[in-house]
Amino acid sequence: MATLQDIVYSAVTYLLSATAFLLAFAILRLQPINDRVYFPKWYLKGIRASPTHSRATISKFINMDFKTYIRFLNWMPAALRMPEPELIDHAGLDSVVYIRIYLMGLKVFVPITLLAFAVLVPVNWTGGALEQIKDLTFSDIDKMSISNIPPGSKRFWAHVAMSYVFTFWTFYIMYKEYKTAASMRLQFLASESRSPDQFTVLVRNVPPDPDESVTEHVEHFFCVNHPDHYLNHQVVYNANKLAKLVAKKKSLENWLTYHTNKYERNPSSRPTTKTGFWGLWGTRVDAIDYYTAEIGRLSEEEDKERERVISDPNAIVPAAFVSFKSRWGAAVCAQTQQTSNPTIWLTERAPEPRDVYWDNLAIPYVELTIRRLIMAVVLFFLIFFFMIPITIVQSFASIEGIEKVLPFLKPLIETGSVKSLIQGILPGIALKIFLIVLPTILMIMSKIEGFTSLSSLDRRSASKYHLFLLVSVFIGSIATGVALGQLKTLLNQSPTEILKTFGVSIPLKATFFITYIMVDGWAAIAAEILRLVPLIVFHLKNIFLVKTEQDRDQAMDPGCVDFATSEPRIQFYFLLGLVYAAEAPLLLPFIIVFFAFSYVVFRHQIINVYNQKYESGAAFWPDVHRRLIIGLLISQLFLLGLISTKDAEELTPLLIALPVLTIWFHKFCNGRFESAFVKFPLQDAMVRDTLERVTDPKLNLKLYLQDAYLHPVFRGGELERPQIINEEEGNPLVATRRNPEKSSKHSYDVAGS
Amino acid sequence: MATLQDIVYSAVTYLLSATAFLLAFAILRLQPINDRVYFPKWYLKGIRASPTHSRATISKFINMDFKTYIRFLNWMPAALRMPEPELIDHAGLDSVVYIRIYLMGLKVFVPITLLAFAVLVPVNWTGGALEQIKDLTFSDIDKMSISNIPPGSKRFWAHVAMSYVFTFWTFYIMYKEYKTAASMRLQFLASESRSPDQFTVLVRNVPPDPDESVTEHVEHFFCVNHPDHYLNHQVVYNANKLAKLVAKKKSLENWLTYHTNKYERNPSSRPTTKTGFWGLWGTRVDAIDYYTAEIGRLSEEEDKERERVISDPNAIVPAAFVSFKSRWGAAVCAQTQQTSNPTIWLTERAPEPRDVYWDNLAIPYVELTIRRLIMAVVLFFLIFFFMIPITIVQSFASIEGIEKVLPFLKPLIETGSVKSLIQGILPGIALKIFLIVLPTILMIMSKIEGFTSLSSLDRRSASKYHLFLLVSVFIGSIATGVALGQLKTLLNQSPTEILKTFGVSIPLKATFFITYIMVDGWAAIAAEILRLVPLIVFHLKNIFLVKTEQDRDQAMDPGCVDFATSEPRIQFYFLLGLVYAAEAPLLLPFIIVFFAFSYVVFRHQIINVYNQKYESGAAFWPDVHRRLIIGLLISQLFLLGLISTKDAEELTPLLIALPVLTIWFHKFCNGRFESAFVKFPLQDAMVRDTLERVTDPKLNLKLYLQDAYLHPVFRGGELERPQIINEEEGNPLVATRRNPEKSSKHSYDVAGS
Repeated sequence: MATLQDIVYSAVTYLLSATAFLLAFAILRLQPINDRVYFPKWYLKGIRASPTHSRATISKFINMDFKTYIRFLNWMPAALRMPEPELIDHAGLDSVVYIRIYLMGLKVFVPITLLAFAVLVPVNWTGGALEQIKDLTFSDIDKMSISNIPPGSKRFWAHVAMSYVFTFWTFYIMYKEYKTAASMRLQFLASESRSPDQFTVLVRNVPPDPDESVTEHVEHFFCVNHPDHYLNHQVVYNANKLAKLVAKKKSLENWLTYHTNKYERNPSSRPTTKTGFWGLWGTRVDAIDYYTAEIGRLSEEEDKERERVISDPNAIVPAAFVSFKSRWGAAVCAQTQQTSNPTIWLTERAPEPRDVYWDNLAIPYVELTIRRLIMAVVLFFLIFFFMIPITIVQSFASIEGIEKVLPFLKPLIETGSVKSLIQGILPGIALKIFLIVLPTILMIMSKIEGFTSLSSLDRRSASKYHLFLLVSVFIGSIATGVALGQLKTLLNQSPTEILKTFGVSIPLKATFFITYIMVDGWAAIAAEILRLVPLIVFHLKNIFLVKTEQDRDQAMDPGCVDFATSEPRIQFYFLLGLVYAAEAPLLLPFIIVFFAFSYVVFRHQIINVYNQKYESGAAFWPDVHRRLIIGLLISQLFLLGLISTKDAEELTPLLIALPVLTIWFHKFCNGRFESAFVKFPLQDAMVRDTLERVTDPKLNLKLYLQDAYLHPVFRGGELERPQIINEEEGNPLVATRRNPEKSSKHSYDVAGS
Repeated sequence: MATLQDIVYSAVTYLLSATAFLLAFAILRLQPINDRVYFPKWYLKGIRASPTHSRATISKFINMDFKTYIRFLNWMPAALRMPEPELIDHAGLDSVVYIRIYLMGLKVFVPITLLAFAVLVPVNWTGGALEQIKDLTFSDIDKMSISNIPPGSKRFWAHVAMSYVFTFWTFYIMYKEYKTAASMRLQFLASESRSPDQFTVLVRNVPPDPDESVTEHVEHFFCVNHPDHYLNHQVVYNANKLAKLVAKKKSLENWLTYHTNKYERNPSSRPTTKTGFWGLWGTRVDAIDYYTAEIGRLSEEEDKERERVISDPNAIVPAAFVSFKSRWGAAVCAQTQQTSNPTIWLTERAPEPRDVYWDNLAIPYVELTIRRLIMAVVLFFLIFFFMIPITIVQSFASIEGIEKVLPFLKPLIETGSVKSLIQGILPGIALKIFLIVLPTILMIMSKIEGFTSLSSLDRRSASKYHLFLLVSVFIGSIATGVALGQLKTLLNQSPTEILKTFGVSIPLKATFFITYIMVDGWAAIAAEILRLVPLIVFHLKNIFLVKTEQDRDQAMDPGCVDFATSEPRIQFYFLLGLVYAAEAPLLLPFIIVFFAFSYVVFRHQIINVYNQKYESGAAFWPDVHRRLIIGLLISQLFLLGLISTKDAEELTPLLIALPVLTIWFHKFCNGRFESAFVKFPLQDAMVRDTLERVTDPKLNLKLYLQDAYLHPVFRGGELERPQIINEEEGNPLVATRRNPEKSSKHSYDVAGS
């Protein structure tokens, strides 16, 4: 059993290794050669230019200014310096509200920790139950936890009272944060410059009409039913095949560049390649000629397909982006039901053009419900039975199995040290691989479910991942046995029995979860800031593919906040904090370190690195709130289970009131704020319409919206923003872009150095 | 243990007594003196006139035409004869769709019964498990049930297969009925003549404004945000005190009439009364003078209050009925969110004027959520702990208790036969009283929850009552012990254990529930058609209060379909039928008799008796559907529990799929049809607006809507329908009213005789 000292030692170790990571980061980021890895956001914004042109040859790649190394932690205060409004401007609302989750963690847990250490730790420490049991070895950690209170003691009143205080404090912070998020979103939507999605509604399930094409049918329907507001519409082409061709051509072009570069560096031998799969099989041909020919062929095919899609009426899916003359008209259409059959003419506010997930726009209603049913069943099996295939794989993945498949490795494997290494790693590998690909699996499942925007796909995947973490990791760690065992337990034990079992094992698992926080939480954050994978990929690309400055821009992989996996992980730490607050407060400081460290790191990343794929206006907050409520409920129920085993029956009615209050609080908050995230109030639309009519009476909206919702493959692969936006951005009220040459040094300061 | 013969005997007995009821009904309804009790609907429609004027003195009261007695069951085919469209016209959509629930019962259970008797009864009968157990007495009922199948038998496949067939058949009927109800509702709404609620939106939680009164604020807000559609609005007065005064005056007027009548019949002595509570205490005064003076005083007070309400700005509540120029405008406003704060300016489609529950229009958002929380807690305690106060009352209500409180009754009570009678009745009385007042309690709770229309109050109360019947009556009858005991069981047993316990006791309780169906179901329907209470009340009123023909009209109490209590009861029989279909099919014929008998009786009642209080357009159907789904789920889970105790593990996975499918089916149906009951499609509104613009271009809508939503007390107690409606009704496209004198005989035929 780990003692307090053990914990402190390993905490110090982890903190030191985290510091080493930070040091590595500080050194790497100062090298000009890595500049595009650690500051891609500024390049994409056009504020930072390549430093490689203006300096001496060596200092192109390595920073020789040793003074900058001394201030290696300077990026932290720099990351915190940018004020929130500027940050929203710079990185978008999604990112800013996302890092507020970490801030909320601090707001919730710092006071709770202080209170818990001031009240509960002394109460537990002097409980004396553990000392009375003879021959029991126990550590100071246990002495600090609720385990040290003898059954039937009046001291449990302190825990119940504190659990009320914690709950109400969490309510208070959650209410405030929900309110802030809602008002930030509303303000953001109101101050946002004109964008096509404000005027546009996505219409799905356009019913087939024997006499009219989809586009005529849409036009007639909206002309009749929204006569004063309908402007025009854009049909959706089924361009999935075309998109595949474009992607394939892109990859071939990369190979061509690679071989051309190779040839330029070594003109003596022309590079060759094989025509088969991944260049591994087939006849050997001249690489440059081969790829040029292939690209030519694909270009032709692409042109043909492009023509077919545009001219073939069957390539038009029964969905359309319908635009209105005013934001009011669009808000009305998005919120109302069009016909008496609720499965056709489905309207919803259009996502941003870059947020649209084009493949899913044409799924009929019945198919959609069946897909969701199947995915729900699959998710259930994934959560409760995921250990079965992994165990099967593990049973094959033994030393003998490897020797059978790859007999030539036998002499190497049989070496003593290698053998023990493989034996140590193998069993875990299948599980690790599963955990790494899990988010991808969940995302594919969400795509099958038929959501139409990237943001909703992210939110949906996050829900699934949260459920997985909750059941498989949290419950799985507390109860013994695998997830399948939990299912059996849940079915075969009475609810009170389950709560008691879990409640009792919570304090015993404190050390495990403290280690988990350090290994998984702290280490993940340190890895996040170091960006090892993008660093390596960038340099590989730089060596093999980059020819022009533009290529180098494309070689950058800024990444973005991966909401679908990060948010459920944060929720996991919230859950741990809430569960342990009343039972073993020692865990809380570790949570606080996690939140504080994460906050600084992610603030730095969204300022300097991430480039968001879409802007949903913090539409995810209701999900965050709901999952926090789930965490609160679990913590309350587990405390109830624990206390009811301790001969303190008079306290259980008090504790039952907490979950009831929590559910009510959830309903109250949702009623109060949720609609800000799902609806579009008419008053706000009217205000903006009126303003616009005054400030820009000559606006040609039809022209502005004409091509806003064209499939990206028709734009030559890149999303161009409409002309008018660019004009406006060139002359904004508040300067958000700076002159690249002039302000390069200044922006560097903002980014920290 | 009851044998099959016992059941048949008691079924025959109950059928005979039901026939006796019907005979009594047939005789009573033919007496002209009871005409207003059994045919009030026709009087209210103005089609039937008092028969007392046109006949000889005796035949005024008693029907001497003996020929009519012979055809005493003729009302049944007569009740079935009126075609559905005419019935909708005559009784409204609510009533017609309500009786379709009974019809659906027949559609679901007749084929299920035939199949069950063709397949399951032979399979069970030859199972032979009971005969193998020595010394076991068992009846034919048990031999027909699943109890007769030995554990581990392959015969359970038949039950599982049948349970699939039953489920899918029920799905099919439910889907069809949901579809029919939705299309009936849409057709009804589309063909409905012009009514104020089509143009009106109820706006609640108007925020206070320091500079403007409520009416100005409402006008400005809607002028700005719905500039093209806003027409006018009607503020809501807090006239609750005034309504009380009006009601009090009405009651005093009744007393005055009573005493005047008394004096007229016996002019020798002027009637006197006492001034105190209910005329039991206080000084004795001349009754006619006293009541005349009191009424005069109240009239004055009423006038003063009426003036105060109209002139005092504080008497205006922050709610309003806002009317629009078109149905399209109203539909848009009702479905959209007005401002970024979702707790103010709440809009919903206005209920019919007569459907408005005026007292609840002014409850602020926070108070509303707190009220709902409290009522949820109260409902929980009501369901699980209702036996506690009843047991306390029962312990007081002993013979000794009565003797202590009312000692003068002692000699009477101590008489042997009286004593045993009291001892037999007393314990049950408290429970009976509770069950009688329960619907009222639930209705009061729903009112506290703050719903704004009578129809939603009814729906809400029905949900509560359904929950009560499910937990207290159904679960309470299956498990031993009181409801509180069930709660303990639910908490302390594992879910599988609970399912097994319930599943196993289901077949054992078949006889009990068969008796229950006969006592509660059959008898209640027979009592429903006899209308004993209204019969007695009418004759009492007729003797003491009636002077003019108009008084006699008011003395009629036609009643209406009591959705809040009847619908949950129907659901209870559905539940029984579904649960027993696979386990003990013998119960099914009793259910079928119930549904068939109810269908005929209620069809007769809505044709001849009931006068609906409101018309919600069958808005209750989604609730009916949801509760049927709950019944299906329970039946599937109980069968799963039973089968899993019978060594047939290979069947349980098959049975687990059923609840999953059921939940999916529920979601599918709701997605497909629910919005027809809660939303108002723009296309339909547009079609009607366009039609109206053509057919009635000169309509003065403002005038039409002016006083539509005035509190009823401002109309002299009676709801007058707007002028235009009456004009239209006087000259309808299809004749729905007939000339009273001419068609009296004819309508009597329709009503059956």
